[in-house]
Amino acid sequence: MPEQETMKVQNENYAQELTYALENSNFISDVGIKCKDFGPGWCESTLQIQEKHLQHTNIVHAGVLATMLDNTAGAAAFTLLPAGVSPITIEFKLNLLRPATGEIIECKSQVLKAGSKFTVVESEAFCFIGTEKKLVSKATVTIVGVS
Amino acid sequence: MPEQETMKVQNENYAQELTYALENSNFISDVGIKCKDFGPGWCESTLQIQEKHLQHTNIVHAGVLATMLDNTAGAAAFTLLPAGVSPITIEFKLNLLRPATGEIIECKSQVLKAGSKFTVVESEAFCFIGTEKKLVSKATVTIVGVS
Amino acid sequence: MPEQETMKVQNENYAQELTYALENSNFISDVGIKCKDFGPGWCESTLQIQEKHLQHTNIVHAGVLATMLDNTAGAAAFTLLPAGVSPITIEFKLNLLRPATGEIIECKSQVLKAGSKFTVVESEAFCFIGTEKKLVSKATVTIVGVS
Amino acid sequence: MPEQETMKVQNENYAQELTYALENSNFISDVGIKCKDFGPGWCESTLQIQEKHLQHTNIVHAGVLATMLDNTAGAAAFTLLPAGVSPITIEFKLNLLRPATGEIIECKSQVLKAGSKFTVVESEAFCFIGTEKKLVSKATVTIVGVS
Repeated sequence: MPEQETMKVQNENYAQELTYALENSNFISDVGIKCKDFGPGWCESTLQIQEKHLQHTNIVHAGVLATMLDNTAGAAAFTLLPAGVSPITIEFKLNLLRPATGEIIECKSQVLKAGSKFTVVESEAFCFIGTEKKLVSKATVTIVGVS
Repeated sequence: MPEQETMKVQNENYAQELTYALENSNFISDVGIKCKDFGPGWCESTLQIQEKHLQHTNIVHAGVLATMLDNTAGAAAFTLLPAGVSPITIEFKLNLLRPATGEIIECKSQVLKAGSKFTVVESEAFCFIGTEKKLVSKATVTIVGVS
Repeated sequence: MPEQETMKVQNENYAQELTYALENSNFISDVGIKCKDFGPGWCESTLQIQEKHLQHTNIVHAGVLATMLDNTAGAAAFTLLPAGVSPITIEFKLNLLRPATGEIIECKSQVLKAGSKFTVVESEAFCFIGTEKKLVSKATVTIVGVS
Repeated sequence: MPEQETMKVQNENYAQELTYALENSNFISDVGIKCKDFGPGWCESTLQIQEKHLQHTNIVHAGVLATMLDNTAGAAAFTLLPAGVSPITIEFKLNLLRPATGEIIECKSQVLKAGSKFTVVESEAFCFIGTEKKLVSKATVTIVGVS
């Protein structure tokens, strides 16, 4: 669905700058979300599920998923922004499809539309139930660039 | 907007059970969100902003707000559910209206519709910029009850 | 909730221009939505429910509500934009709280935040069940200005 | 993404019943949306763009897209519901990615999760700009079954 022609890199130093931004986000470090890989228009992250991520019913709190889905979307948007422009999320919506459990959450974000006014990113979070990789949550994130 | 006739308490022990649930949610304790008060169809919570809540641009991470808006909404929904039924968020959408900064975030959630099939809650998060209380984020949360 | 200081009119001809835009929107005329009143940061509209608005279960189709909630939001945003700038909806989310039935739908939209990058508007749709005015749907609409 | 194991047909007469429902929805007929094809967990529809679908800026009104995205999602959900159960949309969110113009809009809806409590469907709308098929809008729709 994403259009390849819009997935053009405008900032040749985006990789270094994104790595720096991701490593200097306190809340992301505190929660334990790690960037796995990224490229033009996409980013992947992972989270080792710990006791502290759970809610009282012993599944991962929706806030953990929201944090991961939004942050990975911002990173995907970052890869396509001009130099000196930062992504700011202005809204997002997520559906929680099934309980997030197990040992790890994997998140993949993909830019759906990159424009001069706003960027739209889709993020998906997966867990492993037995040997099966299951979609546990999906978000749509709208981002504007600010200089 | 909320209709008073739907704001009927069905579980006479809801206050104790909600207090227990809120105190036993690991992620909420870890982030530092505290319940301030609640009643039939509503809940208020507060968060002392700490270094760990920030993103690299020094404003509170959207994930912190999402966690607070969703969790407080779930608590508001809880107050109106029958005994033995737990609220599960199935989706939420939030708009980020201005940067969350300062010392404290206050959140207020109000049930908009309580039904047998689903409950819809609105949550608002406020910060204090100088002496002014400003709406920084607003969410709509859809919840189903599971037994 | 909306902040009064942001509800400043920037285009002194907004009333005439908005009236013109509303009267020249084919789909709005075709559906039958009429503007009732507007002012800085808000707009109200009405719709006489007709057979053609129904779905097979004899309630008003969600698409009718979406059209009304979005269009009235755009009009509310218009009142606060600079001259020569048009509102474009980039996303909206609506909850359907109860069936829309009866003779009339009333819609009220209120700007929640007007900014240089984007405007956020809330829209509510009401029906009359007996003598009671009931909220049947509520939307949050994000709009950008384009020149 | 959708899980094949959840795409099980429960109502062996779903095709006839869905066809009947689609042909008896006044608003859908009035707007001119036609069902193209459907199967377990999905539905496709088309719309010939007419003058009456436009807003004052001569692009298709967002309300037309919302109607199409929601209605096609409801049809996709219908294919997986038990006999005697109807899909009711409780909320949806759509992003408008680019102006809808040209001669035709094509919509494809796919169930993302079918559950006993709720169904989540994704809908995409496409236009043809020159020879290129472009995604103009995407929605996420949450549906509950009512008997």
